[in-house]
Amino acid sequence: MTLVERIAELRERVRQQRPLLHHITNFVVMNDTANVTLHIGGLPVMAHSREEVAEMVAAAGALVLNPGTLEWLDAMLLAGNRANELGIPIVLDPVGAGATRPRTATMLRLLEELQIAVVRGNGGEIGALSGMGGEVKGVEAVAEPEHPLLAAQELARRYGTVVASTGRQDIVTDGTRVMLVDNGHEWLRTLTGTGCAATTVVAAFAAVERDYVLATAAALACFGLAAELAAPQAQGPASFKVAFYDAIYHLSADQIRAGARVSVD
Amino acid sequence: MTLVERIAELRERVRQQRPLLHHITNFVVMNDTANVTLHIGGLPVMAHSREEVAEMVAAAGALVLNPGTLEWLDAMLLAGNRANELGIPIVLDPVGAGATRPRTATMLRLLEELQIAVVRGNGGEIGALSGMGGEVKGVEAVAEPEHPLLAAQELARRYGTVVASTGRQDIVTDGTRVMLVDNGHEWLRTLTGTGCAATTVVAAFAAVERDYVLATAAALACFGLAAELAAPQAQGPASFKVAFYDAIYHLSADQIRAGARVSVD
Amino acid sequence: MTLVERIAELRERVRQQRPLLHHITNFVVMNDTANVTLHIGGLPVMAHSREEVAEMVAAAGALVLNPGTLEWLDAMLLAGNRANELGIPIVLDPVGAGATRPRTATMLRLLEELQIAVVRGNGGEIGALSGMGGEVKGVEAVAEPEHPLLAAQELARRYGTVVASTGRQDIVTDGTRVMLVDNGHEWLRTLTGTGCAATTVVAAFAAVERDYVLATAAALACFGLAAELAAPQAQGPASFKVAFYDAIYHLSADQIRAGARVSVD
Repeated sequence: MTLVERIAELRERVRQQRPLLHHITNFVVMNDTANVTLHIGGLPVMAHSREEVAEMVAAAGALVLNPGTLEWLDAMLLAGNRANELGIPIVLDPVGAGATRPRTATMLRLLEELQIAVVRGNGGEIGALSGMGGEVKGVEAVAEPEHPLLAAQELARRYGTVVASTGRQDIVTDGTRVMLVDNGHEWLRTLTGTGCAATTVVAAFAAVERDYVLATAAALACFGLAAELAAPQAQGPASFKVAFYDAIYHLSADQIRAGARVSVD
Repeated sequence: MTLVERIAELRERVRQQRPLLHHITNFVVMNDTANVTLHIGGLPVMAHSREEVAEMVAAAGALVLNPGTLEWLDAMLLAGNRANELGIPIVLDPVGAGATRPRTATMLRLLEELQIAVVRGNGGEIGALSGMGGEVKGVEAVAEPEHPLLAAQELARRYGTVVASTGRQDIVTDGTRVMLVDNGHEWLRTLTGTGCAATTVVAAFAAVERDYVLATAAALACFGLAAELAAPQAQGPASFKVAFYDAIYHLSADQIRAGARVSVD
Repeated sequence: MTLVERIAELRERVRQQRPLLHHITNFVVMNDTANVTLHIGGLPVMAHSREEVAEMVAAAGALVLNPGTLEWLDAMLLAGNRANELGIPIVLDPVGAGATRPRTATMLRLLEELQIAVVRGNGGEIGALSGMGGEVKGVEAVAEPEHPLLAAQELARRYGTVVASTGRQDIVTDGTRVMLVDNGHEWLRTLTGTGCAATTVVAAFAAVERDYVLATAAALACFGLAAELAAPQAQGPASFKVAFYDAIYHLSADQIRAGARVSVD
C-alpha cells in the first residue's frame, strides 16, 4: 500500500472506530476541539475533574493534554498515569512553551512524569522544549529554531516520544525516522486554536494506529489538506473556519489520494 | 387553540418577555448557549461565582444547571435553593450522566437537593439516572435504554419533575402526561453542545409558561424545526451550525404552524 | 491629517506592529476575543495563572481585564500592577457592572487599585459605576443613565481614565475631551460578547497609540464600520458573525475613509 493509501485508510478507520478522545484542555479551544473531534469522526469528552478523570480515560482511545491556560495539572497527571497503565496514547500540546518560565516548566514536567506518545507544537514551542532556540510570543512562534529538524529529533530522543513540529512544513520524527508534511494553508494562522485542533486530529489517528510517526503525519496531512480544500470558498478567516470544518468532516479517500503530500526523509 | 398554535404563541411570548436565563454551565458550551439564548429571544447571563449567584438568579426567568465539567456544585445549590424559594424554574442538563460514577452522583445530588422543573438529557443519560439501562460514552448515548419512555416516566415520578429524553424522537413526560416530538435533524449529532443548546431553549420556554410539559415539548419542537429548516442550506456541520442559529432567530409562527410535529401520547 | 485619515493610519499600525494583547477574560468570550485579536492584526494570549501573568504581560502591548465571570481577581491585580510599572495600557471591560453588588464592587476595586487606561462598557454599566443611573439585567443594559455623557465624564474624572460608553452612539471621553462614534449595527445586539470584542479592538489600538481618546474612538469606529459592511451579507446573527469577523480582518484604509463617522464634541 502506498503512503497516501495508508493515510486514506487511517482516515476511514477513525470514522469506523469512532474513538473517544478525552481532552483535558484549555478554555479557549474547548468548543473548537470538541467539534473537530466530531467532524473527523471521533467522540469528544472534555473532563478535568480529579474525581473522574481516571475513570473517564479508561474508555478513551486517546488522551489529549493541552495545558494552554495552565489549569488542572494534577488531573492531567492522574489521567496520564492511568492512560500509561492502560496503553492509551497521550498527545501533548505544549501551548506557549517558551513564552514564560512556568509554562515551559509545566510542559517539561508532563514530558518527564508521563510517557507521551506524541508532542505536537509549533517550531518555537518545540525549540523552547528542546533548548535549541526559537522564540514564542504569547502562543505564537515569532522565530523558528535555527535547525527545526534537529530540535524535534533532540526532543523526541530525550523523552522517547514522537515529535511533530508544525509550520510551513510539518516535521514528524521519533528521533530516527522522519516524515515531512507539505499540506496546509496560510489562513490557518488567522484563527486561534488551529494548532490545538491539529493536535486533536493527531489524537484521533493515534487512537487507531500504533505507528505514531505514521499516524501523526497522516493526521497533519489530512488537517492541512482540509484547509487547502476550504480556502477557495473563504472570504476571510471566519468563513474559512466554516469551510474548513465542513472539509474536515467530508474529507474523503479520493481527496487524500489527490492532495496529501507526505514524504519520508 | 390547537397545539401548534400554542407552540407558536409560546415562541412569540419568549420574544416579547425577553426572559433572563441564568446559566451555571460548562466551559465547552458557554458561548453557544449564550448565543442561542439571544437568538431565541432571551437575555443570557453566565454567572457561577458563589458571591453573586443568589442575587443574580433573583432577576432570572429560569435557571439552567449544566454541570458538564463538574464545576461549581456549591454555586448550583446556592442558586438553585434561591430559585426554588422564588418559584423560578430550574432546568437541569445531566451531561454525561452514566459515563463515570462521580458524574452520575453529581446529577442525582442536584435532583435530590433541588426541586428541578425539567431534566433534559439524551436517552443514555436519562436511562443512567433512572437506573433503567442505556450506555453513555463520554457525553454521547451509545445505547438507549430498552424502554426509553418507561425510563423517563420513572425518573419523572421519582423526583416530581418533567423529563425530556431527546433523540430521534423526543419524549417529554411528567410521569403521567406524555408528549412526543418528531422534529430534528441528523446534522445535530455532528456538533458539540446541541443537547445543551436544546436545554437552553427549554429554559426560555419554561420561563414564560408554567405548564412545563407543554413548554418543554414546544421548545424541542422549535429547536428541531429550526434544524430542519437549516439543513438544506448546509454543506457540512459548521455551515449547518450557522444556518441553524440563523433559523432559531427567525423562527416564525408560520414556520411553526407548517412544521412542528408534537403529539400527545 | 484629518480624523478619518488618522483612524485609517492607526488601523494599519496595528497590522504592522502586531501587538500582543494579554487577556485575562471570562470563559464565554475567550475564543471570540482571541479570534478578533488575530483578525484586527494583533497576537492574542489568554493567560490567567498567578504564576505567569507578571512575566507574560511584560511582552504585551496592552492588557485586557474582563472579569465577566468574576474569576482571577488576584491574577488581574498582579498583571495590572506589573503593566502599570511598565507603562503598558490596561483596558477594563466591566461586564455586568450593576447587575449584582459583588460584580459592581469587583469592577470598582480594579479601578481603584490599578491605573486603567480605558474602561469600555455599555451605558448601563458605565451608569452603574459612575453612580448616575442606568440598569443592567444580566450583562445587558436595559436602561441607559439619564445623562450618559455626564456619567461617562464623571467616571473618567474620578479615576483619571478614558471612558467609552457604547450603544447606539458611542461616547469616548477623558472627562474633558469628548469624541462621538456613530458607526455600528443593530445585529451586534443579537450576539454574545460583542462588547467584549469591541474592548479587544480598543486594546489593539491603545497598544499602538498613546492618545487613548483617539485610539478608543478609532477602534470603536472600525469595529462598528466592520459591522455595517457585514450586515448586508447576513441572513441572521450567526451568518452576520461570520461576515463581521471577515470584515474586521479586511477592513481597509479606503473603507475607513468612506465610512468612519467620528466627531469631536
